[in-house]
Amino acid sequence: MRAARFYDKGDIRVEDVDEPVASDGKVLVDVEWCGICGSELHEYLIGPVFLPTKPHPLTGETIPITLGHELCGRVKNPPPGSRFKEGEAVMVDPRITCQSCSSCKAGRNHCCAVLGYVGGSASGGYGERVAVEERMLHPLGPNIPLEYAAVIEPLAVVHHAVKESGINQWDDKTVLVLGGGPVGLALLLDLRAHGATNVIVSEPALVRREQVAEFAQAVINPAKENVGEGCRELTGGHGVDVVFDCAGVPVGLEAGFDAVRNSGLYIMVAVWELTLPCWQFLFKHITIKGVLIFTTEDFEEVMQWMAEGKLAGYEKMVTGRIGVDDIVEKGFEELVNNKDKHIKILVSPKSAVIA
Amino acid sequence: MRAARFYDKGDIRVEDVDEPVASDGKVLVDVEWCGICGSELHEYLIGPVFLPTKPHPLTGETIPITLGHELCGRVKNPPPGSRFKEGEAVMVDPRITCQSCSSCKAGRNHCCAVLGYVGGSASGGYGERVAVEERMLHPLGPNIPLEYAAVIEPLAVVHHAVKESGINQWDDKTVLVLGGGPVGLALLLDLRAHGATNVIVSEPALVRREQVAEFAQAVINPAKENVGEGCRELTGGHGVDVVFDCAGVPVGLEAGFDAVRNSGLYIMVAVWELTLPCWQFLFKHITIKGVLIFTTEDFEEVMQWMAEGKLAGYEKMVTGRIGVDDIVEKGFEELVNNKDKHIKILVSPKSAVIA
Repeated sequence: MRAARFYDKGDIRVEDVDEPVASDGKVLVDVEWCGICGSELHEYLIGPVFLPTKPHPLTGETIPITLGHELCGRVKNPPPGSRFKEGEAVMVDPRITCQSCSSCKAGRNHCCAVLGYVGGSASGGYGERVAVEERMLHPLGPNIPLEYAAVIEPLAVVHHAVKESGINQWDDKTVLVLGGGPVGLALLLDLRAHGATNVIVSEPALVRREQVAEFAQAVINPAKENVGEGCRELTGGHGVDVVFDCAGVPVGLEAGFDAVRNSGLYIMVAVWELTLPCWQFLFKHITIKGVLIFTTEDFEEVMQWMAEGKLAGYEKMVTGRIGVDDIVEKGFEELVNNKDKHIKILVSPKSAVIA
Repeated sequence: MRAARFYDKGDIRVEDVDEPVASDGKVLVDVEWCGICGSELHEYLIGPVFLPTKPHPLTGETIPITLGHELCGRVKNPPPGSRFKEGEAVMVDPRITCQSCSSCKAGRNHCCAVLGYVGGSASGGYGERVAVEERMLHPLGPNIPLEYAAVIEPLAVVHHAVKESGINQWDDKTVLVLGGGPVGLALLLDLRAHGATNVIVSEPALVRREQVAEFAQAVINPAKENVGEGCRELTGGHGVDVVFDCAGVPVGLEAGFDAVRNSGLYIMVAVWELTLPCWQFLFKHITIKGVLIFTTEDFEEVMQWMAEGKLAGYEKMVTGRIGVDDIVEKGFEELVNNKDKHIKILVSPKSAVIA
């Protein structure tokens, strides 16, 4: 079957690989769509960062590996006794966890000591078929279209970030979202579903500012306006209660620290390595929280909210659809060279698909 | 009168200056003792950092300025109607606040937009006499000896840090304190008073490890032992619930991030500029909180706890006493060259004093 495999930075190859075998309670899924994630772009540009260069402790796999962890599809040849029917539409929770470390035992498997994921530590969604543990498959039901189900994964990431803030009541909170790209837009949908009504976005690209405008109360262009001043003007001089950093760049951190109120909360949703501006951090008594991935509850809640219509607008996260044979040129290279044009590009591993 | 004034890095001069005048509701205090703070050492080594090079908005003062913000003394010539008697022993809350910015109005004057302090933005405790707003003076009462009252200020700083953790119940919490110097030792006293019974200290200097041993359940030498492993061994494999960083160095941050449990809390008590190790920060869902200075409530609570004996052992914070004429050689230079020998050196501005 066809699959796009990561060999090294700048080296993703679409080639013929063996089909996966369903063993150890795994179920086969014919992949329908799989979204390209920013973390994969990062691997493409400077990796391997988190991709295994020695055998992953849970899967034994190493690069070259088939990427793709935002994947949905249809169950293929379910084993006897499976709760799934042939052809049933499912979303894959891509996490691979040990179920035996102290985090897993404590019900916090998103912090599993040897956390892996389908499309990173095992073959993923840029191949025509995957073998996944049955417990990680979630039926889409009648209200989530398979065409858009791949966005469940990034929505679960931001849903987790919003919940990790510890805030339950959002309608009286003022929020700044740094970055209106895929993570920022997903966050806006989730914040709205949580009841947030005072959300400011800072985004330098015009096309992205236009994309997010309908989901935010105000949009600031940080290239032309002072973000901190803008936020204070919009919050009666106090600054915002919470910043979600979906940009992960020093200039964003600086603006966010300026914009957040005293004793405010700063949540890092996308970041690689940042130096804290110490004086503001201490003086303003800022709390910074690191978040990553999601829990099973987050994943299921997002699916429920999608089915109920609470996350309306999620279709706008998808700005491109390509076939796997074009994944380098029309996927990764396109996202590098025209990143502002896109929110999310979905890949179909069926080689004969689309343009 | 004699006073030690900061001119520039490496340039503190003991010289004759005019006596302060009590105006605008200020009260004169004859300084008895004033502790040398690590932040002053920092100014001496690489300053001026926070010392005003242009007139401070509240005091109009600029360097050269008389340092010293951990000061106690006796009231001198109280004005008519003062609540203080001549010669009454007092501790000075050194904060200078505007009382009109949004933080001050919200009862959070420790975050005052133009926060200044006696001994930084106005003449401080390394002079024989200071003029201080009456509301910032706290009577020592019969149970706090004037000889040790100067430690109230650093104790208020750590008391604030402990309370800002948001934790009310400490007896079931595991804690790591990075650094057993002045801030670390003060923190240990305060944690014990809060009921903490599982406190680990990491400190490389032998003499400091010996000093803090009686106030901690375990002491680790980070030069010889792996701090993270040591903490996990002592916490059933989980890692500590809370880290207090009183070291502010990259190697400490790395050890603290390793030692803290998933979703644990990391409180920065002393830090200048640090780069976050991103992967651990996100993966472990660590929360980092910046804290600085203290509130009026913190200050008063520390004085009450001292008077009640809850902070027993505070005398051990004082490891040297000198006269102001020796402040450079036996104070600042001594702390630079023999820092591990000392916790806190107290300075008497009465030139005729001590050895």
